[in-house]
Amino acid sequence: MTATEAGAAGRAEASSHRAPQEHDYSLTAPMWSGTPAAAASSDESFLAALLEAEVALAAAMAEQGAIPTAHVDTIRTAANPAHFDIRSIAVRARGGGNPVIPLLADLRGQVRDLDPDAMPSVHKSATSQDIVDTALMLIATRTAAIIRADLQTAADGLAALVDRHRITVMAARTLTQQSVPTTFGLKAAGWLQGLTTAARRLEDAASRLPAQLGGASGTLAATVELLDPQAAAAVVEHYAATLDLRVPELPWHTQRGPVTELGDALAAVTGALGKVAVDVALLSRTEIAELGEPSGDGKGGSSAMPQKQNPVLSVLISAAARKAPGLAAELQRSAFAVDERPDGAWHTEWSTLQELLRLAGGCAALGAELTPGLQVHETKMKANLELTGGLVLSERLMLKLAPVLGKETVQQLVTRAGKGEDLRTLLADALEGVEGCDEDELLDPASYLGCSDTFIDRALDAYQEQFTDRSHDGQ
Amino acid sequence: MTATEAGAAGRAEASSHRAPQEHDYSLTAPMWSGTPAAAASSDESFLAALLEAEVALAAAMAEQGAIPTAHVDTIRTAANPAHFDIRSIAVRARGGGNPVIPLLADLRGQVRDLDPDAMPSVHKSATSQDIVDTALMLIATRTAAIIRADLQTAADGLAALVDRHRITVMAARTLTQQSVPTTFGLKAAGWLQGLTTAARRLEDAASRLPAQLGGASGTLAATVELLDPQAAAAVVEHYAATLDLRVPELPWHTQRGPVTELGDALAAVTGALGKVAVDVALLSRTEIAELGEPSGDGKGGSSAMPQKQNPVLSVLISAAARKAPGLAAELQRSAFAVDERPDGAWHTEWSTLQELLRLAGGCAALGAELTPGLQVHETKMKANLELTGGLVLSERLMLKLAPVLGKETVQQLVTRAGKGEDLRTLLADALEGVEGCDEDELLDPASYLGCSDTFIDRALDAYQEQFTDRSHDGQ
Amino acid sequence: MTATEAGAAGRAEASSHRAPQEHDYSLTAPMWSGTPAAAASSDESFLAALLEAEVALAAAMAEQGAIPTAHVDTIRTAANPAHFDIRSIAVRARGGGNPVIPLLADLRGQVRDLDPDAMPSVHKSATSQDIVDTALMLIATRTAAIIRADLQTAADGLAALVDRHRITVMAARTLTQQSVPTTFGLKAAGWLQGLTTAARRLEDAASRLPAQLGGASGTLAATVELLDPQAAAAVVEHYAATLDLRVPELPWHTQRGPVTELGDALAAVTGALGKVAVDVALLSRTEIAELGEPSGDGKGGSSAMPQKQNPVLSVLISAAARKAPGLAAELQRSAFAVDERPDGAWHTEWSTLQELLRLAGGCAALGAELTPGLQVHETKMKANLELTGGLVLSERLMLKLAPVLGKETVQQLVTRAGKGEDLRTLLADALEGVEGCDEDELLDPASYLGCSDTFIDRALDAYQEQFTDRSHDGQ
Amino acid sequence: MTATEAGAAGRAEASSHRAPQEHDYSLTAPMWSGTPAAAASSDESFLAALLEAEVALAAAMAEQGAIPTAHVDTIRTAANPAHFDIRSIAVRARGGGNPVIPLLADLRGQVRDLDPDAMPSVHKSATSQDIVDTALMLIATRTAAIIRADLQTAADGLAALVDRHRITVMAARTLTQQSVPTTFGLKAAGWLQGLTTAARRLEDAASRLPAQLGGASGTLAATVELLDPQAAAAVVEHYAATLDLRVPELPWHTQRGPVTELGDALAAVTGALGKVAVDVALLSRTEIAELGEPSGDGKGGSSAMPQKQNPVLSVLISAAARKAPGLAAELQRSAFAVDERPDGAWHTEWSTLQELLRLAGGCAALGAELTPGLQVHETKMKANLELTGGLVLSERLMLKLAPVLGKETVQQLVTRAGKGEDLRTLLADALEGVEGCDEDELLDPASYLGCSDTFIDRALDAYQEQFTDRSHDGQ
Repeated sequence: MTATEAGAAGRAEASSHRAPQEHDYSLTAPMWSGTPAAAASSDESFLAALLEAEVALAAAMAEQGAIPTAHVDTIRTAANPAHFDIRSIAVRARGGGNPVIPLLADLRGQVRDLDPDAMPSVHKSATSQDIVDTALMLIATRTAAIIRADLQTAADGLAALVDRHRITVMAARTLTQQSVPTTFGLKAAGWLQGLTTAARRLEDAASRLPAQLGGASGTLAATVELLDPQAAAAVVEHYAATLDLRVPELPWHTQRGPVTELGDALAAVTGALGKVAVDVALLSRTEIAELGEPSGDGKGGSSAMPQKQNPVLSVLISAAARKAPGLAAELQRSAFAVDERPDGAWHTEWSTLQELLRLAGGCAALGAELTPGLQVHETKMKANLELTGGLVLSERLMLKLAPVLGKETVQQLVTRAGKGEDLRTLLADALEGVEGCDEDELLDPASYLGCSDTFIDRALDAYQEQFTDRSHDGQ
Repeated sequence: MTATEAGAAGRAEASSHRAPQEHDYSLTAPMWSGTPAAAASSDESFLAALLEAEVALAAAMAEQGAIPTAHVDTIRTAANPAHFDIRSIAVRARGGGNPVIPLLADLRGQVRDLDPDAMPSVHKSATSQDIVDTALMLIATRTAAIIRADLQTAADGLAALVDRHRITVMAARTLTQQSVPTTFGLKAAGWLQGLTTAARRLEDAASRLPAQLGGASGTLAATVELLDPQAAAAVVEHYAATLDLRVPELPWHTQRGPVTELGDALAAVTGALGKVAVDVALLSRTEIAELGEPSGDGKGGSSAMPQKQNPVLSVLISAAARKAPGLAAELQRSAFAVDERPDGAWHTEWSTLQELLRLAGGCAALGAELTPGLQVHETKMKANLELTGGLVLSERLMLKLAPVLGKETVQQLVTRAGKGEDLRTLLADALEGVEGCDEDELLDPASYLGCSDTFIDRALDAYQEQFTDRSHDGQ
Repeated sequence: MTATEAGAAGRAEASSHRAPQEHDYSLTAPMWSGTPAAAASSDESFLAALLEAEVALAAAMAEQGAIPTAHVDTIRTAANPAHFDIRSIAVRARGGGNPVIPLLADLRGQVRDLDPDAMPSVHKSATSQDIVDTALMLIATRTAAIIRADLQTAADGLAALVDRHRITVMAARTLTQQSVPTTFGLKAAGWLQGLTTAARRLEDAASRLPAQLGGASGTLAATVELLDPQAAAAVVEHYAATLDLRVPELPWHTQRGPVTELGDALAAVTGALGKVAVDVALLSRTEIAELGEPSGDGKGGSSAMPQKQNPVLSVLISAAARKAPGLAAELQRSAFAVDERPDGAWHTEWSTLQELLRLAGGCAALGAELTPGLQVHETKMKANLELTGGLVLSERLMLKLAPVLGKETVQQLVTRAGKGEDLRTLLADALEGVEGCDEDELLDPASYLGCSDTFIDRALDAYQEQFTDRSHDGQ
Repeated sequence: MTATEAGAAGRAEASSHRAPQEHDYSLTAPMWSGTPAAAASSDESFLAALLEAEVALAAAMAEQGAIPTAHVDTIRTAANPAHFDIRSIAVRARGGGNPVIPLLADLRGQVRDLDPDAMPSVHKSATSQDIVDTALMLIATRTAAIIRADLQTAADGLAALVDRHRITVMAARTLTQQSVPTTFGLKAAGWLQGLTTAARRLEDAASRLPAQLGGASGTLAATVELLDPQAAAAVVEHYAATLDLRVPELPWHTQRGPVTELGDALAAVTGALGKVAVDVALLSRTEIAELGEPSGDGKGGSSAMPQKQNPVLSVLISAAARKAPGLAAELQRSAFAVDERPDGAWHTEWSTLQELLRLAGGCAALGAELTPGLQVHETKMKANLELTGGLVLSERLMLKLAPVLGKETVQQLVTRAGKGEDLRTLLADALEGVEGCDEDELLDPASYLGCSDTFIDRALDAYQEQFTDRSHDGQ
């Protein structure tokens, strides 16, 4: 059996194991509760991944002759997650500081019942960290694939909005104040650009996730004791291939580059979606009302105050996006880990990476729900743009009229308009007899949109390149 | 029924509800898995607390005549956590962004089955945040009490060590290098002082945790519509008293002072225990070997490398202590929350506070296990102190002998000793004929301990004041 | 000279030293640039404080007879900050990892020029950390006093607003949507409550800041070698009194409770002010326009877009408040510091605490500028409250009319109003013939304010207690 | 003049401007004080970069005919940093919230003195954020180049150590305990791999840093008003080329991907160097003493305790590495920035990115000093490896002898050795008559090194690929 065949077999085996997975309760985390990403990174999935790693190790060792081939099937049969008491393993993990120690005790018990001779073939020459790290990379890879698909859906939704609203004029806002006109298409193009960049980073990081196999302290000495250095290296390759993970150049027990790069990319994902969410929530405010979240399912309704339609998707995305950077930073801190296995930094990583996967997964799922049905209230956008009586075009007036009327005169007009006089009338009076300057033209926001069309094209191009080309290769 | 009686009744009721609580799996969090603190702040406990808050609200409203008294018992009967599907509530929480909305749907269903007329009395004039915040304060108060008790055990363990090792001489170390002698008693006194301070902060913060009851936006307008302002204020008082929480001066929906003060105190607890843990782990190193964690239960053993005795308790405390400050900071960030209920900041708080309670709870439980049985290897402390051949007393030599022999001469002696010559011999030669200076006396670490005895007394006094005086008042 | 006299003399001396202090450039930090708090915690102030600590140490040692009294004046004369090249000291600090080592070299040089015999009396029996920590506490104490005064000004400004706007009706907002009516007085009362709590925490933490004096590794062994334990303890007391700092129970080289408690309190200050700022910025939005920052000085103006009036004070407060929690967390992380002086954690503290002091100082200064002149646009508040055509009172309608008209009928009315029908007309029709229900009364927000008045009183009481009573005792 | 020529000219101009740059005092930051990276990211450098951006904007606008070419030279002459009062600009930045507003006032004044007609050509159609962001990218690019060069030096130093110590046997340590033998070459290979990965990330991120030019709100409307969309886009290209920055697809005022990706990469750099530092500091401990920092310059010495040689470089690297992740997280948080310019998030970025550049720059400079001269004490490594009397090879004994003697017998031997009996003797007795098992061979750590040689080769290969190939292209 080649490594590729073994990989396919391992995956089939694995997926049959993972069938009826349940997630944790997540009662305090509606950002992710019930999402496929949360299931893919749940404690149950982690347990299944630990067992997959043990099976893949056995298969790889057998392939090189370090253990009898017959033992692999025994171990695979024994390593059925349904036979393990996750709660008991979690509690017993305190004894040695990690869950592999009690898991192995139970796995060896299962194996002994099937074939006592196979017991010494379990976890042969590996260390707990090999299994924990590999399992983390497995759930990370699988969760990242789900996130990537949800990012695609969210990006597709945005791309449609960008195209549809190329010339939907609205107010841009800086430091909370209306500044100049823009289009909703350009605003959504910025969001799309953010998602495109984040998707690139996630793909890069996810594609670099390696298997872990170094033995007690990263030398593979025990494996070499059984085989030879070349065969030991082949074990690592087979093991990684079975699990569809990258072959590491060297064990990375205390070189946590893969973890931090993934963590940073996950924070980039939540950041890009968080930017969309804070804008949507803002523009959904009662007084602004330019956007509305997709209706249906009674989402965001309030029985006590039926007039309210809360932007719940955005609220939950924001909640997740607020928390993610701190977790990514924790992973970075865990990277300056002393020795060949550190005294705490590594242990902090597990729950941190798990939660970060779920936050990003929750964000992406919410984003995939948000953008396709986002309601754009063009009339309100237009009305808000007129709130300042044309002053939202004062930059243009300064630029165009200062050379004609003098800078001070223009400022005076603007000031008077700011105090309540009608700007159009003021301009009409001031421009009487001035050629080439028409107040209606000057005050038309649709003619002051700069390069927005070009920028929109570029954002759509980048989106196409990132998302479309890869959509058929199964990622 | 007075508020106090109601409080007692409510607590009895509550504790019967909470009997068979199970914790989450915590497979990635051996720092807290299986601890009472984790159980007290679990999703199950949070659900029970949400229901307790609803019952207390009904009781308080009934006491002021806002709802019929008979409805209270109906609601109390219905609000049995065993009748609620926590998983379903967690998933449905996504719809409105918080778990109270689906919980209320289910609770009203339960009530309807018992007495349809009582349905409108459920959650009367309250808002979801009233219930969520109150429930968080309930589980925080209860978890804090457990943490406080474990801190006491850990402090008691340290106090015994301090007293026992007042004159156990060892090397102090600064910037990784042996500096001057100290005693293990003084080192442990520093740890004790840290725990004492942290316990003070936790008690202060926990004693300030208020109930939340403000209605839709913190005015209690709906309650006042049913009663009058004075009676509405009395509702809040009764509600808080029933739940053994502080009466808030005003609703704190977006004034999160109580939460941040608690979060900061919890981080102080993990920091104080983390300091103990990093020292214990360091001093347990193979090459230093001055301390050993309590043996027994096979904790920290390695079957593959039987010579190893890993300081697992310290490793897990460190792991928890590393993560806590980031979570406390997240709570602080959630405090600048816009409006009368923010669009994300509040939602980030729940899981953050929950994990922080568990990290602190895990730390404290591990600490309570660590200090009472800590093994102190006095012989090894002495041997390590002699590693530099007396140079660990060079500060004293400079101080005492520079006036006698000249600074340069002393430096030369020290330099020669640093290159391998015997310091005692060098000193004996140099001090020949010098009165009042004896090399044996100069090189005796036990006579160069400064105020360590005074400092130890002060640390013990502060410990007594913080811990002992309160031990009988039930906290 | 008693310790108190010495303290007074020391302070006079110190303040003459600190006269012409310049702050750093702060080009990237407009949040604090040019503020007194930034000056009080500048590198120059830190240098002056390092020298103050050395002078206070000499005075305390002389008082106990450990060095000649005459040397104190020599050291005081030499320790004039103007004679030291701060830039050179900063660069040379890399050699030993802290600035006291090069500072001492320079100080000893200055002393030698005045009186060579006094040289050995400089820094006698102290360690660098004694001086660095004490100097940090000095600048922290002084900066905290400035912050406290600015908090008072900000709170006074708010208290006036609270009182003035007790019945200024406006919309409360939850999850971005208008919910029910509230008053601006109550909103400002919440802000005031936040400042009151933060001021309490800052005062508590600042009052606990201790001097540091422990010698090489916290035993005071070198001091005891010169004196005796009792006299050594008296040195610490005199030293602390001179500097107006608390006498520590024991050296706290690696027990960083005072630092973390201060850091947490500073984050509480920025959080409380940050809450004000995010609300002000939001309510200043072009479309909401209920608040305006104090005008004058051309603050917040834009020459290119003259219609804009940016809420610059709030923007800068927010910017500072965003950053503070991360720094407070860094201080907490520095608290699990190994050994008697750690290998990095301590060194991270200095610039972190310095920046945190400045962020809080900047926030407080901006807050003191913001609240006294805050513009409240009551007309716009009223207009916004009417945006929903009365639906902002739907909670009340449900509450009052459901028992009369039936829940479903009320919901239908509300739904129809939500689709554009006139709510008042709908109600008038529905309530025809119903007694005790008047649509004008029901739709009057001013009669649906609940306990807001009571809550305002309580917030003002707490403010009085915190701020007013202490205003005369010089804090 | 082509864009490339303009770029060259602009750079020459720029470097003449930047000649006598001074850094800030950095009295609290010995991690970076006095380093070239700190100078390249100082307030002075930032000011110069702001002016460079204004000059490049003028040149680009002139090239497209939007302003007279003659004005460019006037602006370039006026934009001499030496003519600007940085302190005054910093303080006046509070007025509008950013330093470009006062800078422009001063620049326009300088231009007016030279040629009043050129005044309107200054900052034509740009917004403050265009200039601030571009200047940040300029100092980031230049600082990153310095960091990259220092990383190369540090990596070169490590590569030499890796090669030299391929077979230098030492103890690996996990969870603080000696586990199995490893080589110092492999340990250093891990460090090298970390630096290689971090260098890749830094190069990727630095190569993506774009110029910023979008006008008031990212549409370039004002520029298009003067030119046309195509020419406006050409202005951006010319502007970016002049400054050697990437041309952005669209303005990124509130799409902060470039900033977060850089920040994450800088944290990766500090993390990789931090890992080296914590290991070096640990292995330099008095009791372990396997490594020593480069001697010379009296670095790390203590005059009071002359026996100490503190690992100061490692201490300072650790101090910097501890702080960096929190700052990177702050940048990620700033990325969910509302509107077209946010009300605080952007302002938090400037000082955060500046400090992060300096921390990474300081780390890299310290690392470049640390690795080339690192002292490796092979004798002590060997001695420490023998501390357990051969038990550090117990994994091998279990593996090899369990099949021969039975698992329980081997465990008994190991246990007896753990209690003090001589392991070699015990083995000799047990193996008497057993063929193919020699106790000397079994207890020889040099024959239990697994794949360390292969792993070393791979780390060196990756290093070569990352560093060597690019060393000649001037990066």
